[in-house]
Amino acid sequence: MNLIDVKSPADLKGLSISELTDLTAQARQALMTKVSEHGGHFGPPMGAAEMIMALHYVFNSPVDKIVYDVSHQSYVHKMVTGRALAFLDHDHYDDVTGYTDPTESDHDFFNIGHTSTSISLASGLATARNLKGDSENIIAIIGDGSLSGGEAFEGLDYAATLNSNMIIIVNDNDQSIAENHGGLYGGLRELRESNGESSNNIFKALGLDYRFVADGNDLETLIHVFKDVKDIDHPIVLHIVTQKGKGYAIAEQNKEAFHWTMPFNLETGKPEHVDNGPSYAGVIADYLMEQIKADPTVVAINAGTPGGFCFVSDWRKEAGKQYVDVGIAEEHAVAMSSGIAKNGGKPVFNVYSTFLQRTYDQLVQDLCVNNNSAVIINHMASVYGMNDVTHLGFFDIPMLTSIPNLVYLAPTNKEELLAMTAYAVHQNEHPVAIRVPVGEFVSTGVADMTDYSVLNKSEVTRRGEGIALLGLGNFYHPANQVADELAKEGINATVVNPKFASGIDEDLLEELKENHSVVFTLEDGVVEGGWGQRVASFYGPSAMRVKNYGIAKEFHDRYDASELLRENGVSVEQITADAKRMLQ
Amino acid sequence: MNLIDVKSPADLKGLSISELTDLTAQARQALMTKVSEHGGHFGPPMGAAEMIMALHYVFNSPVDKIVYDVSHQSYVHKMVTGRALAFLDHDHYDDVTGYTDPTESDHDFFNIGHTSTSISLASGLATARNLKGDSENIIAIIGDGSLSGGEAFEGLDYAATLNSNMIIIVNDNDQSIAENHGGLYGGLRELRESNGESSNNIFKALGLDYRFVADGNDLETLIHVFKDVKDIDHPIVLHIVTQKGKGYAIAEQNKEAFHWTMPFNLETGKPEHVDNGPSYAGVIADYLMEQIKADPTVVAINAGTPGGFCFVSDWRKEAGKQYVDVGIAEEHAVAMSSGIAKNGGKPVFNVYSTFLQRTYDQLVQDLCVNNNSAVIINHMASVYGMNDVTHLGFFDIPMLTSIPNLVYLAPTNKEELLAMTAYAVHQNEHPVAIRVPVGEFVSTGVADMTDYSVLNKSEVTRRGEGIALLGLGNFYHPANQVADELAKEGINATVVNPKFASGIDEDLLEELKENHSVVFTLEDGVVEGGWGQRVASFYGPSAMRVKNYGIAKEFHDRYDASELLRENGVSVEQITADAKRMLQ
Repeated sequence: MNLIDVKSPADLKGLSISELTDLTAQARQALMTKVSEHGGHFGPPMGAAEMIMALHYVFNSPVDKIVYDVSHQSYVHKMVTGRALAFLDHDHYDDVTGYTDPTESDHDFFNIGHTSTSISLASGLATARNLKGDSENIIAIIGDGSLSGGEAFEGLDYAATLNSNMIIIVNDNDQSIAENHGGLYGGLRELRESNGESSNNIFKALGLDYRFVADGNDLETLIHVFKDVKDIDHPIVLHIVTQKGKGYAIAEQNKEAFHWTMPFNLETGKPEHVDNGPSYAGVIADYLMEQIKADPTVVAINAGTPGGFCFVSDWRKEAGKQYVDVGIAEEHAVAMSSGIAKNGGKPVFNVYSTFLQRTYDQLVQDLCVNNNSAVIINHMASVYGMNDVTHLGFFDIPMLTSIPNLVYLAPTNKEELLAMTAYAVHQNEHPVAIRVPVGEFVSTGVADMTDYSVLNKSEVTRRGEGIALLGLGNFYHPANQVADELAKEGINATVVNPKFASGIDEDLLEELKENHSVVFTLEDGVVEGGWGQRVASFYGPSAMRVKNYGIAKEFHDRYDASELLRENGVSVEQITADAKRMLQ
Repeated sequence: MNLIDVKSPADLKGLSISELTDLTAQARQALMTKVSEHGGHFGPPMGAAEMIMALHYVFNSPVDKIVYDVSHQSYVHKMVTGRALAFLDHDHYDDVTGYTDPTESDHDFFNIGHTSTSISLASGLATARNLKGDSENIIAIIGDGSLSGGEAFEGLDYAATLNSNMIIIVNDNDQSIAENHGGLYGGLRELRESNGESSNNIFKALGLDYRFVADGNDLETLIHVFKDVKDIDHPIVLHIVTQKGKGYAIAEQNKEAFHWTMPFNLETGKPEHVDNGPSYAGVIADYLMEQIKADPTVVAINAGTPGGFCFVSDWRKEAGKQYVDVGIAEEHAVAMSSGIAKNGGKPVFNVYSTFLQRTYDQLVQDLCVNNNSAVIINHMASVYGMNDVTHLGFFDIPMLTSIPNLVYLAPTNKEELLAMTAYAVHQNEHPVAIRVPVGEFVSTGVADMTDYSVLNKSEVTRRGEGIALLGLGNFYHPANQVADELAKEGINATVVNPKFASGIDEDLLEELKENHSVVFTLEDGVVEGGWGQRVASFYGPSAMRVKNYGIAKEFHDRYDASELLRENGVSVEQITADAKRMLQ
């Protein structure tokens, strides 16, 4: 049978093992071709190919419900649930997202992109099934890497109390994005090495039934096990050992590089395009290494995603114990950072904006109530960041700037990024977060000598009159462009680099009243609850007219950033036109 | 030795066991007297009295560092670290907070009030100690109830990788606030029943050394164990069994009622004052019970704090499997609720605003990206809610209203609360959160027939001109009072009940422009990033003058609500005066 002809899992049911094996080989070939041409997650779906094929062979999706964790391993699931074309025909590659998506298929139950959620989500499906008196199988899949997230533990703890069917597949490839970190992984290793017999079994300790499956890339074994547990009347953990990147030797050897990849050459495994230009993440990583060498109490922390921060293998080795990967455990990372700062260390937690969301309460309680001087480097907080609906990074300003004590800085170029980071690392007064610029790399070549200990002090970089353009962080540049456009019309706009997202410069705002009647705020994120609305509130009782630019509060999936901004009225042309109109 | 003479832990060092026993008895007597007169946490500090006394006898605080979880068990710690007067002299009861507080004493390392944080915070202290090359003992205490929170698991998982001293005390009294829930607790029971020998040992499964202590209320045993592990060179879990409420028979028998208590009669254990009046929580509980009886798919969920929601023992029994306590696992509660809604159930998660903070990412990712129709009943989201700095509930509007798809409703009285809850439970369109009113119980006696499926529709309850007062939720009432005051001066203000915190009624705001020049917004929470600033932003480009009332972004501890509001210019007199001035 050809993969392209599989329209639904029903088409698999009558196949022989050898036919199914052949189909799995086709699926794996499709993965290699598509991801090497298009980019995407590679190691996870390659390793899970047999597991997913066997699940759909044995279970009856979508009546039986499979929930994937992160769902970056679900590509083969998509192939056998009517979406094979999107993996076989490059004109259709973008027909599907990189994650499960209920709008694509009834076989997908949730949009999922953050880790450690599958057990909780699936236990919700199971709880509803029980309330309704239904009897379908509920299956949650979770990787070993995702198990370090607290939400996964909470889910396991609850699932164990379900006196009913629930099948939790721990897909153990002994690898997170990078190597695993945490005591948990010693226990999993013991289980692998003892064929599941070790007494140090976290699943049994939580009261869960447990079964070990050594060869999770063997279809027959998997089918046998799944048939055995189908319609089981209580929760069980199937601990299934798979090989990440299985079937592509270079990925099997280079698990971290092939977790997610840009387009690459299938022969050599080398990326098609290498960008050796400077990056903001690189600037931070270089600075941190310098500080690590100068001060034994500086410690660079991350939660399972070192690659994006240029914490590559050699860097990690050089940093030694001054580099800490806590595993996928952002909450712990923030609380621990608070503790490190309290005891005289200099913690610098690097994190993606979308994952920092998981730490809201730790930021408030563990860090900011205690006002400890930990540093958070927030990457990809921008409309120009990751554009999957599950990885959006542009809610950070409303989230972070309503938390007392937290200083949130928004640099506009390399020199400000460096100066702000240096300030943050060396001060002992406040928790400080830094919104790493996203987009074109800008360097002025002139060191930034600003004293950032003077909070909420903005910089007027261009003095005009009539209209003031306040461009926060990344959006300082378009503010300047608008000013350039207005200058062509004889309008001499004031431009301000606010620098602080967590507060407003009330003295400056007051001063602007003297010879300005219009103030525009521009910010690279959601406008509701954002920075600009504080400016609008400040000027509310006055005659100043204020317009806040940013994007409206909405989820977007795989959007084009410029288009999205234009839809929200945020382009240089639109803002320029608004300015001319309002100044008339 | 008299407790009042203990000025620091050094004073304990030379005591005999019998003297220490006597001191512990004095501490327990002080707890009973103070809490019965003043109110506070009772079961936790009573059960931990010997443990804390023994810790300070053996270890050298504050060089050795003890971190308490929730820190509601730390009262005896406060007594022996120079703060005994606050427990012995009722004129000084309020000299200390109910939690650890670094501003009170060098023996306190963090302000802590949320659960499950101690291991992460302490592992931060340990990490910094290691970086600095110091060698003090780091001790984290955590209760069995708090272990169900994901942050505790993340902390354990990391602590296991510390190749250095760390002592984690699991204070196991077999009770959360209410009974424990989760598979974890079967494992802990097995450990208790097997004297620590059961092979189902979650701590060992995480790679931690482990030691069981059966009698955690015996000073000699504890001192012996603590001396044994002092200066240990690796992380160890001491699983210590204690009795919650130990020493006061009525509390030993009624663990839930005596976890935290209002002033009570020591003879009878009965509360000094019983409020039998109607409450908003009672209205919700009654409504839910009605719905539970009518529809088997309605399920009332909470995360370990049923009492405050009137989910008392009988109520729970009556609700049967339609009541779910997930343990202290708010993240799981939200994700599971999303799953329940997805599979056709009607989940209603009751939670305190301060603890809902822990679910920011689950709200965004698990719930709102998926737009499932789960219901969140948010209690104590108000300046008038809990006033400990660790339990503030007034950050909810900025937090919740920048999340797309989430409908956040702000009722002003019983009838609106009921109508909004009914709408939320019976619709299938959106995740809906409801901000339960706090303060005086208001009932109009007239059923609210509003169709809440028409989003962001506000109600004009008083039509005037010149000035419009938009009073969100709890602050609808002061808005009316301001209007009454203004009426005395011949000013006929418009009053609006916005009803929706998650959006603004743009049509109405537009309409107000016709015959109003001033708009005031009043909200019961932090003004920065709040609801009123959306109104200011809407009117920004226009001539309308807007003033946003609420409190400034700051932490406050044990504040007086009216005073705090007055300091922020939010009293009927101040607002009335502002209105008159701005209308001149």
